[in-house]
Amino acid sequence: MADNIDIAEGQAEDLHGLDSRRVEAIRDAVEAGDSARVSELMEPLPAADIADLLEQISSAQRRDLLHLWSGEIDGEILSEIDESIREEVIENLPRKVLTDAVRELDTDDVVDILEDLEEPQQEIILGALEIADRVAVEQAMSYPENSAGRLMQRETVAAPEHWTVGEAIDYLRSAEVLPDQFYHVILVDPRMHPVGNVTLGRILSAKSETRMRDIAEEMFRTIRATEQESEVAYLFNQYHLISAPVVDGSDRLVGVITIDDAMNVLDEEHEEDILRLAGVGEGSLSDSWIETAKQRFPWLFVNLLTAILASGVISLFEGTIEKIVAVAVLMPIVASQGGNAATQGLAVAVRALATKNLTQSNVWRVIWREIAQGVANGLAFAVMIGVISYFWFGQPMMGVVIGMAMIINMFAAAVAGLLIPLGLEKMGFDPALASGAFVTTVTDVVGFFAFLSLAEVILL
Amino acid sequence: MADNIDIAEGQAEDLHGLDSRRVEAIRDAVEAGDSARVSELMEPLPAADIADLLEQISSAQRRDLLHLWSGEIDGEILSEIDESIREEVIENLPRKVLTDAVRELDTDDVVDILEDLEEPQQEIILGALEIADRVAVEQAMSYPENSAGRLMQRETVAAPEHWTVGEAIDYLRSAEVLPDQFYHVILVDPRMHPVGNVTLGRILSAKSETRMRDIAEEMFRTIRATEQESEVAYLFNQYHLISAPVVDGSDRLVGVITIDDAMNVLDEEHEEDILRLAGVGEGSLSDSWIETAKQRFPWLFVNLLTAILASGVISLFEGTIEKIVAVAVLMPIVASQGGNAATQGLAVAVRALATKNLTQSNVWRVIWREIAQGVANGLAFAVMIGVISYFWFGQPMMGVVIGMAMIINMFAAAVAGLLIPLGLEKMGFDPALASGAFVTTVTDVVGFFAFLSLAEVILL
Repeated sequence: MADNIDIAEGQAEDLHGLDSRRVEAIRDAVEAGDSARVSELMEPLPAADIADLLEQISSAQRRDLLHLWSGEIDGEILSEIDESIREEVIENLPRKVLTDAVRELDTDDVVDILEDLEEPQQEIILGALEIADRVAVEQAMSYPENSAGRLMQRETVAAPEHWTVGEAIDYLRSAEVLPDQFYHVILVDPRMHPVGNVTLGRILSAKSETRMRDIAEEMFRTIRATEQESEVAYLFNQYHLISAPVVDGSDRLVGVITIDDAMNVLDEEHEEDILRLAGVGEGSLSDSWIETAKQRFPWLFVNLLTAILASGVISLFEGTIEKIVAVAVLMPIVASQGGNAATQGLAVAVRALATKNLTQSNVWRVIWREIAQGVANGLAFAVMIGVISYFWFGQPMMGVVIGMAMIINMFAAAVAGLLIPLGLEKMGFDPALASGAFVTTVTDVVGFFAFLSLAEVILL
Repeated sequence: MADNIDIAEGQAEDLHGLDSRRVEAIRDAVEAGDSARVSELMEPLPAADIADLLEQISSAQRRDLLHLWSGEIDGEILSEIDESIREEVIENLPRKVLTDAVRELDTDDVVDILEDLEEPQQEIILGALEIADRVAVEQAMSYPENSAGRLMQRETVAAPEHWTVGEAIDYLRSAEVLPDQFYHVILVDPRMHPVGNVTLGRILSAKSETRMRDIAEEMFRTIRATEQESEVAYLFNQYHLISAPVVDGSDRLVGVITIDDAMNVLDEEHEEDILRLAGVGEGSLSDSWIETAKQRFPWLFVNLLTAILASGVISLFEGTIEKIVAVAVLMPIVASQGGNAATQGLAVAVRALATKNLTQSNVWRVIWREIAQGVANGLAFAVMIGVISYFWFGQPMMGVVIGMAMIINMFAAAVAGLLIPLGLEKMGFDPALASGAFVTTVTDVVGFFAFLSLAEVILL
């Protein structure tokens, strides 16, 4: 909100580059229409930070900023921008700027941008590419969404497995174009099947006459182009891969995936898990309130139905409540405690399934463990709430009733928290879809029913 | 469950290597005490899968397996094993096997293992190291836990910035020992301050006489040894770093961090977020039911207290409930809907803070957005539940009461779901600690109070 903040280059000590003072200063410059000042402030920012900046400002500010500064938008910035605003940004760019930006990019980044655009915008971008790149991009787009084929870059560095280190070095030094980033030379057999990876570090340190195959890495994995990208992220993380060749249906080399892309996918998968567990679909921080309201509505609606179901259970016991109003006071405790216990088990299960730690080999041990801990904590809380209720309402049997209901619901929570995500996984759904609303239906219904029916039987 | 499954090598097509049939076969071989068969079945498995196997079997099976097979445990397996069982595995290894295994490891992996061990076991491992490695490990341990200094490997490949590519290659080819994995040559000034990174790919393709500094990467970041590892993971993901030099307080090069380690940290941070949001502390799938019960207890206890608080609110309105029992039936709906809405906002806020997308620059826009969408959905659900309640209980004013309470609670949910994690972050806590139990206290209390007090005022 200050008017004129001067940010000296050397002062930008902040690790993220994009501190709020700079954002403020850029906003002011945009408002003042001072294009030179905007450029001066934007210039030191890496592409990823410029993309973040564009996400953080409002839609109107974005338009003004792009107007003042669009000439300097490059391909890297385009590919860093969140998909939620990419379409808007692209629409605001002069055709020439867009064309130049797209031409700089590797094919995998172009594919990433294309995926989220509408047909007419896709055409503009495809039209901007050189023929060879266009063909490569269209081939990549022929793989399923979220597959390794879409994620890979097609530029690979491969060598026959019988080559020596000297031959490989000569080849690399004479190659006209090498990819921007590559970490391995992929060894291939005569039919272009990848058979090994040699790190550049080993090539640089080995003797010229060493056979490439003798210094290939121990850990070597190929990835099918049709493999899910979540699986790719898992493989990279599990086996500490840095890059892995991608093969087609006949095991021939068609591309390569590098760890930075896999790390990105891992991060997105986590975002999906955390948001789905909370009952939030897609969505981004730059969405408007209307979009946000729409995104959140569906699970809230499901929750309304399940809450009504729980109320239906309560209404079965109106007579009991009329006679002993204390049960109305205490009944949310049992349901709430069960809901929390179920959420705990759910989070553990979803995470264990995502990391493939929960398998057929240990599922029975884990089911048993969840039930045992559920009953144990159920007992502990039964005693506590039993004693509290006794003192609160002065009725010993009220303590017994709520204690028993607590044990029953904690048992139900343990079972539901584990079996619902397991069942979803088995049926081919994302277990994280077993969001709070789903699992807590069980604990609400069981909690209210157990407590109120016990109250009716024992207290009346 | 099957008795004797034969797994032919070529048959192990499964991408993860560790399918449940193989685990079953290994279990059978361990039970039969058939050490040759165990080795045959274990041999094709990569270290990461062996670690997973050890985590998936029971503690007794683990002991038997290690007894039959311990000679083949190497350093890589040790460093892959989950910390929850590492101590147990180490205790079961003959001293000689342990010593050999540890000696193979890079210093960063040794540090990673040491961190989670008790003093006497630490001594054994430190004693197994050669003097130079021991010093390196002890220096790393002098950095704070979860810092870049602990994460980095100390083996770096550096060159003076004025060197040519030819000089660098000569140096690399004559170096006696190079790290197992390195992706850059770090350029340093005469005082060992890192000034740039040159990828090995560029070194291999550039002309001999090219100056190294002329082919340095555009994106270059150094990381302070005292930096939090979560920050390191963020930087790697944000700026697509592959490796980054680590510097001490005087900006001198002390080590290097590679992306595979950063990816690992990112994955662990996500695990922490997802578990904390669900109110689960530390914990692993191989923990016993007693350990699990203890881990889950604290948040359940907090939830019990907050649930009692909510009950306290209800008890203020016992008179109303006695007169109109329908309010007892409907009251959980308002609370539950608010709880879900708050959880949605909470997940979005925690994620946005973790990715540094929620900053001072956009916090007001996001607060306003959350409130607007909360009120909008509040209105939508107010109408729905109002109409339903009217038809259910035949009282028009009941619909009005629950509708008004719904709007109030959805507003409270929007505010609490965002401000509680923001406040925690501001106070230096992990915003994910604002787990369900915390935020839903607000929506329970507000939900019950709003509904019941409106009912008292309007319906009585």
